Amino acid sequence: MNTSAVLLMDCPDRRGLVARVSALLYKWGANILHADQHQDHELGLFFMRVEWALADAPSLLDRSLAPHPDSTTPRTSAGDFDLQGFQAEFAALAAELGMRWQLTPGTRPAKVALFCSQYLHCIADLLERWRSGELECEIATIVSNHRNAESLARFYGVPFEWTPIEPGTRPAAEALQLDLLQLLGVELVVLARYMQVLSPGFVERFPSSIINVHHSFLPAFTGARPYHAAHARGVKLIGATSHYVTEVLDDGPIIEQDVARISHRDQVADLVARGRDLERVVLSRAVRWHLDRRILRYGNKTVVFD
Amino acid sequence: MNTSAVLLMDCPDRRGLVARVSALLYKWGANILHADQHQDHELGLFFMRVEWALADAPSLLDRSLAPHPDSTTPRTSAGDFDLQGFQAEFAALAAELGMRWQLTPGTRPAKVALFCSQYLHCIADLLERWRSGELECEIATIVSNHRNAESLARFYGVPFEWTPIEPGTRPAAEALQLDLLQLLGVELVVLARYMQVLSPGFVERFPSSIINVHHSFLPAFTGARPYHAAHARGVKLIGATSHYVTEVLDDGPIIEQDVARISHRDQVADLVARGRDLERVVLSRAVRWHLDRRILRYGNKTVVFD
Amino acid sequence: MNTSAVLLMDCPDRRGLVARVSALLYKWGANILHADQHQDHELGLFFMRVEWALADAPSLLDRSLAPHPDSTTPRTSAGDFDLQGFQAEFAALAAELGMRWQLTPGTRPAKVALFCSQYLHCIADLLERWRSGELECEIATIVSNHRNAESLARFYGVPFEWTPIEPGTRPAAEALQLDLLQLLGVELVVLARYMQVLSPGFVERFPSSIINVHHSFLPAFTGARPYHAAHARGVKLIGATSHYVTEVLDDGPIIEQDVARISHRDQVADLVARGRDLERVVLSRAVRWHLDRRILRYGNKTVVFD
Amino acid sequence: MNTSAVLLMDCPDRRGLVARVSALLYKWGANILHADQHQDHELGLFFMRVEWALADAPSLLDRSLAPHPDSTTPRTSAGDFDLQGFQAEFAALAAELGMRWQLTPGTRPAKVALFCSQYLHCIADLLERWRSGELECEIATIVSNHRNAESLARFYGVPFEWTPIEPGTRPAAEALQLDLLQLLGVELVVLARYMQVLSPGFVERFPSSIINVHHSFLPAFTGARPYHAAHARGVKLIGATSHYVTEVLDDGPIIEQDVARISHRDQVADLVARGRDLERVVLSRAVRWHLDRRILRYGNKTVVFD
Repeated sequence: MNTSAVLLMDCPDRRGLVARVSALLYKWGANILHADQHQDHELGLFFMRVEWALADAPSLLDRSLAPHPDSTTPRTSAGDFDLQGFQAEFAALAAELGMRWQLTPGTRPAKVALFCSQYLHCIADLLERWRSGELECEIATIVSNHRNAESLARFYGVPFEWTPIEPGTRPAAEALQLDLLQLLGVELVVLARYMQVLSPGFVERFPSSIINVHHSFLPAFTGARPYHAAHARGVKLIGATSHYVTEVLDDGPIIEQDVARISHRDQVADLVARGRDLERVVLSRAVRWHLDRRILRYGNKTVVFD
Repeated sequence: MNTSAVLLMDCPDRRGLVARVSALLYKWGANILHADQHQDHELGLFFMRVEWALADAPSLLDRSLAPHPDSTTPRTSAGDFDLQGFQAEFAALAAELGMRWQLTPGTRPAKVALFCSQYLHCIADLLERWRSGELECEIATIVSNHRNAESLARFYGVPFEWTPIEPGTRPAAEALQLDLLQLLGVELVVLARYMQVLSPGFVERFPSSIINVHHSFLPAFTGARPYHAAHARGVKLIGATSHYVTEVLDDGPIIEQDVARISHRDQVADLVARGRDLERVVLSRAVRWHLDRRILRYGNKTVVFD
Repeated sequence: MNTSAVLLMDCPDRRGLVARVSALLYKWGANILHADQHQDHELGLFFMRVEWALADAPSLLDRSLAPHPDSTTPRTSAGDFDLQGFQAEFAALAAELGMRWQLTPGTRPAKVALFCSQYLHCIADLLERWRSGELECEIATIVSNHRNAESLARFYGVPFEWTPIEPGTRPAAEALQLDLLQLLGVELVVLARYMQVLSPGFVERFPSSIINVHHSFLPAFTGARPYHAAHARGVKLIGATSHYVTEVLDDGPIIEQDVARISHRDQVADLVARGRDLERVVLSRAVRWHLDRRILRYGNKTVVFD
Repeated sequence: MNTSAVLLMDCPDRRGLVARVSALLYKWGANILHADQHQDHELGLFFMRVEWALADAPSLLDRSLAPHPDSTTPRTSAGDFDLQGFQAEFAALAAELGMRWQLTPGTRPAKVALFCSQYLHCIADLLERWRSGELECEIATIVSNHRNAESLARFYGVPFEWTPIEPGTRPAAEALQLDLLQLLGVELVVLARYMQVLSPGFVERFPSSIINVHHSFLPAFTGARPYHAAHARGVKLIGATSHYVTEVLDDGPIIEQDVARISHRDQVADLVARGRDLERVVLSRAVRWHLDRRILRYGNKTVVFD
């Protein structure tokens, strides 16, 4: 289990933001593991991500450190970080600075639902990464309108929910899916080549919490059969894109993209095969970054802290 | 100077095409340097490129070779390859097989015109590659609607033609440009970030012989200011594309594409700077491949033999 | 099942090689699907790969084709390709030309053994690609010195052989493995992060038929712990390499390589994680190309026909 | 001219470093443009780069900002940033924290010397980037043991110094070069395919201030003729590396690397041609990052802030 806390914040840019946030963390004795910030000078926005240890492992570094004269709170706490105390004081600062913020204590893994249809390469890849510890989360359920993934789900010990969708049954299927996700407390939905378009009502329920993979280099080739379209256009590179789902199809904030070189020798079937490798990689990266709280969405774009 | 001949051909696919073409080359004693073919199974088309030596350098390999029993013509010609004789016989075969073909004797470099406007990174790059011998051609003229490239042209010893374009003067400027290109016998026009749209009449005069570089990963972000559009969309990779110019803007057959990774930290100016490296590379590759007769256009696509 | 035959050949380069091979194929009525050749001018070597259909599906193209006047054998055979007849005549030609050659009728998939140790990302990836039809082969057995892969093997329905290796037991373990491979008729051994060094005696039994993945960009960082070495050297890209195994460790003919960008932020654990994606891709490509008979080994290098 | 200051620092990691540095900048009213930090947890080191505006352009953001209650110095200075005052106070803090640091006021461009030999692709590329404003520096001189670059130097209006090197004359040539560099106040030496090995005495005079490009993916293929070595080994990717020069040949801290895919079709001449594009890109990036004060060297590695 992850024993660190992550604070993601963004607000209008102004002087002293780093100074005030870092002073507060210092005052509460945070042992910072990673910190990164970004300024969008054009829009006048400030973004920051800080990750610090919750269980305090006093290190050689700390022992050699003299007490800080300006610190009113003992800097090197004897035990664990006082997250509640910090959060209360930070909330006041955030309000003053007009911040949006999200504090995630890494004491429990996020609950994730994987959606898929007939193609299993993405979901098999995610499950294997999860099993090997690369993705720190709890896979609460696998949901599919087909049964292809059922044995895979059983092998990995994940509950499988078959929600077949016929013409006219999508509203009922979505209602069932939403009930299930609510019941399980799912926080992130991953569309691992799920071939159904989610309704706006579904999308609204998971703002910035549904990740999709589209098998093209967006914004080129939106919609159905992008490999066919890429082949018809005669491009020399194909791509894949992972993004947050919004109400507009294939238009949400892009998280990651990658491409592969192709040539005139490659037929559509070759594009499909090479594309599978791209899809696996861009989707799994997006999921990992989301779980690591590295992604800040603003407008229709993302900041991805590395 | 290149002392080889290149034969590019395409026709409806059928059995025995390679056998018949290679038998003919063998009969005339061609010392083949490179050969490549491609079949588009979907459209039932066959493509082939063969390159062979014109000046015959008898090698150790040849000397050890016994005469071929089926050959009526002496296989190892004492002197140079009889290009005219071969061409006459090949033309008959090509007619029988319904071939489009193009035979280029490498006895003189192609005549090229470079067009540019105010940005000089592509034209400076092409000129330096030409000077170093990487591009085998004769640069007949540099044409521009601005004077920025004039000193560069003088430094590299290339004639410079200033054809300013004001509202309403484009037809006159194009007429002048076309007269100049005809006078100089230009065979290839390279638009090295030339910021004017050519008229359909101009394009018609150089079928599959005008190469443009567009600063996006086509078909994404056609038209003006693609880096601004890419930044607004929040993509994670930017691209550049070289293509043959057709009547439809940014829609011609793609020759080469490349991409570079960007992040949320990159503003439009950063995209522009990184994009310059992509533009240089994809444009210079397209020009080199065209000069090497590696590109076969069919429909709105290209075969690029490597 | 693949219904095509593949002919791989190489010999000293000389004129007319393509003509003579293609004439023979034409004479026997081969419906060529892919053909590619390569000349190494420096060494004076010629390489060729031809793939043609075994079950003859007369196409529209064929029906419109007039009989070839020089052909003594009916070109469009009424039924299947006469592989035995062709092979007999080709063997004579090959002997005359001093060819090494390999004719593989695609009537049965190759038998493959997968070796692994404790890391399962490569073997899980290969199994999933195999299940989805991306790798056309029969996986005859999974062999491991650990039991980690046993449940995975069971899930995919592949026999699992545990051959533990302790100090001093390697000769016995290898003897057992070799007996098993012989019994099963294994033609290709894939080392999917198998952490044992094979003895020269083992390697000799499978010339150009053992594929390994090494987690570095060879020839940099041979030997153990390449990610640690890469981190210590401060490289900005990490790589992975698939290659045929020879008696010299990490020195065999390279089949495929790929790299990923890293930064100063990446610790060894990050390199290991990013490297897994590279390992999966370069190993699976090598296996697919080998199964498709696309690879010709010569000296310590490979020709990989695309 | 750049109107910002850059502060690069590194020290043993401990809590509160960001808080104390950012508090000091805030106190002096710095309008921070970019800030980035890095922790090497393994070695217990902290690295930071901050860039802020020197000429104070009060923005809309600032005007809407209420005074900070804890600030004793007026935060929004009426005029320019007091660099001397800040530096004095920062020096004391840095001493307390055991920091190495470097404060660069962007009031004048760095003085650079370009060294080359007979290949001009890198130096032509650097000069064109410099002319277009991509590299903010003063090119004080071009030094070469050949005269090939002389006309290029004249075209770009840069002094050219011919220092021929014959067996036995290297010490005298280096002495002359060093005198020249001292006279001109050169701060950065760029070896743009300079084919002479610098003596240890030369290297010592420019610690972390000589950038070289090596035409391989280091640490593979150190020394002479790396493209030949890459071809002989049969690699599937070639690379280029820019690095700081140290006393050990091709062993200095790596700044940037890039690779390109090759195939069995590529002969050494093809590798050389493709490699030129890599060399241009990795060298120009390294120079730009150095000029932008983005690079921190530690041990034999670099932190490159993006």
